[in-house]
Amino acid sequence: MLSVEEARSRILAPLEPTSAEMVALPEAFGRVAAAPIAARRTQPPLDVSAMDGFALRADDGAKGARLAVIGSAPAGHPFAGQVGPGEAVRIFTGSVIPAGTDAILLQEDASEEGAVVTIRETVTAGQHIRRAGQDFREDETLITAGRKLSARDIGLAAAANHPWIAVHRRPRVAILATGDEIALPGEALPPGGIVSSNAHALAALARAAGSEPTVLPIARDDPAAIAEAAESARAMDYLVTTGGASVGEYDLVQAGLSQRGFALDFWKIAMRPGKPLIAGHLGEVPTLGLPGNPVSAMVCAILFLLPALARLSGLAGEVLPNEEARLGAPVRANDARADHLRAKLGRDAAGRLVATPFARQDSSLLRLLAEADALILRPPHAPALAAEAVVPVLRLDRLGI
Amino acid sequence: MLSVEEARSRILAPLEPTSAEMVALPEAFGRVAAAPIAARRTQPPLDVSAMDGFALRADDGAKGARLAVIGSAPAGHPFAGQVGPGEAVRIFTGSVIPAGTDAILLQEDASEEGAVVTIRETVTAGQHIRRAGQDFREDETLITAGRKLSARDIGLAAAANHPWIAVHRRPRVAILATGDEIALPGEALPPGGIVSSNAHALAALARAAGSEPTVLPIARDDPAAIAEAAESARAMDYLVTTGGASVGEYDLVQAGLSQRGFALDFWKIAMRPGKPLIAGHLGEVPTLGLPGNPVSAMVCAILFLLPALARLSGLAGEVLPNEEARLGAPVRANDARADHLRAKLGRDAAGRLVATPFARQDSSLLRLLAEADALILRPPHAPALAAEAVVPVLRLDRLGI
Repeated sequence: MLSVEEARSRILAPLEPTSAEMVALPEAFGRVAAAPIAARRTQPPLDVSAMDGFALRADDGAKGARLAVIGSAPAGHPFAGQVGPGEAVRIFTGSVIPAGTDAILLQEDASEEGAVVTIRETVTAGQHIRRAGQDFREDETLITAGRKLSARDIGLAAAANHPWIAVHRRPRVAILATGDEIALPGEALPPGGIVSSNAHALAALARAAGSEPTVLPIARDDPAAIAEAAESARAMDYLVTTGGASVGEYDLVQAGLSQRGFALDFWKIAMRPGKPLIAGHLGEVPTLGLPGNPVSAMVCAILFLLPALARLSGLAGEVLPNEEARLGAPVRANDARADHLRAKLGRDAAGRLVATPFARQDSSLLRLLAEADALILRPPHAPALAAEAVVPVLRLDRLGI
Repeated sequence: MLSVEEARSRILAPLEPTSAEMVALPEAFGRVAAAPIAARRTQPPLDVSAMDGFALRADDGAKGARLAVIGSAPAGHPFAGQVGPGEAVRIFTGSVIPAGTDAILLQEDASEEGAVVTIRETVTAGQHIRRAGQDFREDETLITAGRKLSARDIGLAAAANHPWIAVHRRPRVAILATGDEIALPGEALPPGGIVSSNAHALAALARAAGSEPTVLPIARDDPAAIAEAAESARAMDYLVTTGGASVGEYDLVQAGLSQRGFALDFWKIAMRPGKPLIAGHLGEVPTLGLPGNPVSAMVCAILFLLPALARLSGLAGEVLPNEEARLGAPVRANDARADHLRAKLGRDAAGRLVATPFARQDSSLLRLLAEADALILRPPHAPALAAEAVVPVLRLDRLGI
């Protein structure tokens, strides 16, 4: 059986980011930049005032001096003339510095009477002036490719004069739930059947990862039905199946996919919950076969599908936010399979992160998975640990899933 | 001038969550539950097998015993008959436990030959059976109102048989940028003008908060134009303006809004970047007037607009993720205004969070705001601090904005 790390690197290795598309600036929020975003202009474009007040020559700026106010320069309406000795121009934050001036007298340090301003605090050359290019200069790269664009990035790209942004196309993910025992919510159930929950949980996870999910009709436990359903995935960037990945004789996903030229890479991972996970390719389409158990499916999706979709989406860097926490309760020694204990997070009196595993860790408990804030990562053969021992945790509350 | 905390509580006090709408389950991802979500069925509905193997009577389960395999019960196809002494039924994970049996023999502890199975490990009563209701029981509340629904919650709601979910309607937010000096990206700019960046950054922030933004056409610096634009906000849940909120004579937003019955609550906050912030109501519509400076606008939006939109969206709990970090560089004593230093985050050798403020903190530097991972919160009159001192930080990298 493969380790979690080896399985992940084999799943990720063949994946390439999707191609670029141009989207309107507002639509680029949350998308991944497909090319560096460079400044198309210099910001500020000219020297501008940092404050409301009066533009003047610093040589005229002695305390007590009186200057003739010869005009006003609100933002967007630069003063057209030249300012001479003994003269000043009313100015506002962001206004272009008038020709001939080299300092700003703050409004609160000035007394204005008619067309004359009296200086109450001596002015020094250059004060309260923002220099052209102080924020950025034309052609400088402001945002690197592979970055998920934040609201602040959208503001920066706007300021840099980009109405359109090149982003990676959203990866298209086909999601195929299989099984004779499942039906969609609200539909009639077979005897002893359960409601299909994996497909929509996985679709939401795919959306959180910036992908575009397509939930296929449920395939019954029959290789021909699975083969036919898989056909729909030909035009997709990724195929995810759920169910039929275990060792019993009713494990039909491999049989079904094989009818359409499925190439298996591996199908067992030394982990819990999980283990039977099918990884391979259906023709050109990378394919991940998740267990049918909802908790196993979701944990495997977090560990493998989320990084895979991040890679397809062009995202650079790490997507699984591991942190350290202190155990809120002791844990037993682990066996040969990496374990992922569902846990609540809190803080101790010193403000440090505490992860307390649920007493029940049965992989059938979907409710506890939904209530968990984190997975405590227990490597193979990890020793028993007392409360307060430091352990790595994967923060589900950070993943938006 | 008001403190940040007092301003925030006065902004939040009058806000009520939006009303509910019914959305299809997949659309409920990331939305806020408007009502508790209770289980519509018991999970598992009956006692089921936790493993692949054989269902039998524990009384027959001694090591070495041989049992007649009288049938098979794949998931979705329960065994219809009664299992008698000396008999067993082939069973799979999730299959209903056949009548007459009370234990599961693991597949790996069994040898099957023809229609006879030999027991290799003694079986104990109840082993490997998941009891009905172990995950949840009909009518139990699974998800509380006010929770933002995760992918795992969507799975849980599906398993609980909900095709439709009651969520709060997305708050509708009108965004009005004002100013003679601004133009949209790609449009012709006035002399010395700058590209409008606030409206789209705020729209992205509103989307991150689960709201539905409407970016209004830019209003020129004229009270009548602003009054007319504000008219469009009558049907909205919130109005945000940007620009024209400072102390100069060109501050026209208040003048414009006042023509349409604007009631001012307050307009100055002891903070930096920021300070001139208009809070009030335009008729029934709560209104926030942000500064025109992009950094000030965004910091004020994070501190005030984000919690306001969270409140409107029905979200329970805290939305601003404050944490503690160690300073990566010394900071000066603060004046009377709460400061929000833009900073990069890292980890020290001990793995502790380190926040290093940028050397330049000028509020005109949009690029540095976009590059910041956090705001270091400096209360009014906070003393100078050496590197490694512990300070509160607001993690921008956690906010999705």
